Amino acid sequence: MKVEGKHYRSLWWDDRERVLMIIEQRWLPHEFRIEPVRSLQDFATAIVQMRVRGAPLIGATAAYGIACAMAADPSDTSLDAAWSVLNATRPTAINLRWALDRCRGALRPLPPGQRATAALQLAHDIADEDVEVNRRIGEHGLTLIRDIAAKKPAGEPVRILTHCNAGWIATVDWGTATSPMYHAHDAGIALQVWVDETRPRNQGALTAWELGSHGIPHTYITDNAGGHLMQHGLVDLVLVGTDRTTRQGDVCNKIGTYLKALAAADNGVPFYVALPSSTIDWTVADGVAEIPIEERPEVEVTDIQGRTQDGGIGTLRVPPVGTPGGNPAFDVTPGRLVTGLITERGICAATRDGLAGLFPDRAGAA
Amino acid sequence: MKVEGKHYRSLWWDDRERVLMIIEQRWLPHEFRIEPVRSLQDFATAIVQMRVRGAPLIGATAAYGIACAMAADPSDTSLDAAWSVLNATRPTAINLRWALDRCRGALRPLPPGQRATAALQLAHDIADEDVEVNRRIGEHGLTLIRDIAAKKPAGEPVRILTHCNAGWIATVDWGTATSPMYHAHDAGIALQVWVDETRPRNQGALTAWELGSHGIPHTYITDNAGGHLMQHGLVDLVLVGTDRTTRQGDVCNKIGTYLKALAAADNGVPFYVALPSSTIDWTVADGVAEIPIEERPEVEVTDIQGRTQDGGIGTLRVPPVGTPGGNPAFDVTPGRLVTGLITERGICAATRDGLAGLFPDRAGAA
Repeated sequence: MKVEGKHYRSLWWDDRERVLMIIEQRWLPHEFRIEPVRSLQDFATAIVQMRVRGAPLIGATAAYGIACAMAADPSDTSLDAAWSVLNATRPTAINLRWALDRCRGALRPLPPGQRATAALQLAHDIADEDVEVNRRIGEHGLTLIRDIAAKKPAGEPVRILTHCNAGWIATVDWGTATSPMYHAHDAGIALQVWVDETRPRNQGALTAWELGSHGIPHTYITDNAGGHLMQHGLVDLVLVGTDRTTRQGDVCNKIGTYLKALAAADNGVPFYVALPSSTIDWTVADGVAEIPIEERPEVEVTDIQGRTQDGGIGTLRVPPVGTPGGNPAFDVTPGRLVTGLITERGICAATRDGLAGLFPDRAGAA
Repeated sequence: MKVEGKHYRSLWWDDRERVLMIIEQRWLPHEFRIEPVRSLQDFATAIVQMRVRGAPLIGATAAYGIACAMAADPSDTSLDAAWSVLNATRPTAINLRWALDRCRGALRPLPPGQRATAALQLAHDIADEDVEVNRRIGEHGLTLIRDIAAKKPAGEPVRILTHCNAGWIATVDWGTATSPMYHAHDAGIALQVWVDETRPRNQGALTAWELGSHGIPHTYITDNAGGHLMQHGLVDLVLVGTDRTTRQGDVCNKIGTYLKALAAADNGVPFYVALPSSTIDWTVADGVAEIPIEERPEVEVTDIQGRTQDGGIGTLRVPPVGTPGGNPAFDVTPGRLVTGLITERGICAATRDGLAGLFPDRAGAA
């Protein structure tokens, strides 16, 4: 999407320099830095240090890492070594393993002399597919926003509340929950986005940066504020992403999503979840009962990072030293609270039948 | 309550030095500092600078301010001047005006020669009454906690979730929502308190300090976490304070309270509100429709204060410079989501009949 009027993807290939360019995300939202990634070791470092983040983006980055390794040495040994080095960077990221397996599976049968070119093309394909999936999510979501806009008095923006960063910088472009917003904005529909801060990691600051950079009006609020805003008719639509969706439509997303879904239900506000179908886990039905929730380090809750008054990045401790912190990273919103799921194939009910209707080819396999 | 094993009130009179001693709250939760307040100007400064905070505590402090002025000069002019100086410190604090009017009303008829002694006694009375009201809230709340404890397997703590700081340092002692916790702990009932961070001002850090200082086990969590904890049976009781309660039992409290009430209702967790009856506004029925919600400065949301690594107090900015912030400070939890109200006269339903039953003397006047 746009940054200062210019369109960017989160990564892009520089064909003249033969390097991958990335947005160095550790400095966001405070600085917009672009840097090249050249060697296999560079790629591994970029992923480990979270210079790139977000499952889809990590997968695409790893594919370019394989391409880089093949350009240097297209042997089987080199291919296996690159797979191992990259796979070890973020062992739990599903898209990473998926992208690496796809690359190795496609390249292994080829003669080494063809691997460099094929690997680069495959990386391009993986990146483009991610963009296309998110573009379609945006098109489907746009119809929802258009319908809401049509019912509002002229000149009033559609007010959307979002939680966390399901944005373009976590994907190659468009993002998931943000894609309908970008589509609507680009189609000339006036928006006002309420951006949840999203404690403890404050990913709302990234969403605010994204929206601000693209020119979409938004307001940064605490996670506590959304219920009050909905009570007073100030939210027309809640739109969030998801890390994992069960086959009955339960949605595991950033901690606090469930509270917003409750408030939406209590106030008759539509609550939609945008997702690429790759995040549907067909093996799980009851999300609350079956999905284990990651408990992350308590320091994420007790210590806060941000920009210091002299322009650096600093850390502050909020509660007293020694206070124990609890940090469940995700929660599950039962499908009964979800108005609909926005996928690349269209919008469906957050139910077993709804998902099976859109994905008959996959639902049967579970 | 206790700090490092010793019992404190938030303020106390030093009879030998003839000064009021206060806990200097601007340094909490990072440092426990006590300081004397001597002159009328000292009192005004202490309130303006929020060295003392919390409506009940401000009222009691102001009464001591009047006593201090009367000791220096018991004339009518001095009395009126002291009233004006103190009343101007926090113009919207209801208890402040109430305490000042009570003092002036009682002192004015007295001969100047008796005013200093009477004013000091009145300040003592106001402070003691606050303690007594909160002690009774604690006794009534204790019965609830005792009932829950009786139904739990032996050795399992009663798990209470609280939001904001309705604690002893916002009152003279005990606090409101915390009073039942202190009573239960002192009665030997094992507790585990989930302390909501309470963005944007992070008053959970004060609650964590209070509970830790008194020896009550607790865990500091983000405001996002409570719904997930309730879904998994990890909360036995939600217990919060209130700034204003309507005659039909709607509760206006710190922003985010409503979201916790929704989660409690969705998971069958009892949701109680502790309040001195002075916070009941008999003139208001429908809290969501009728109570105007204060919109506070956006810098409270975008900038965070805490302890720096070198031990000072610092500020960090989280979202990008220029991001607009929204900061509604309170929300209203409809009485339908409140299991009961804990007052100094007992526990009642959060309904018109419930409140009128406990306060027939006041309900009729509205």
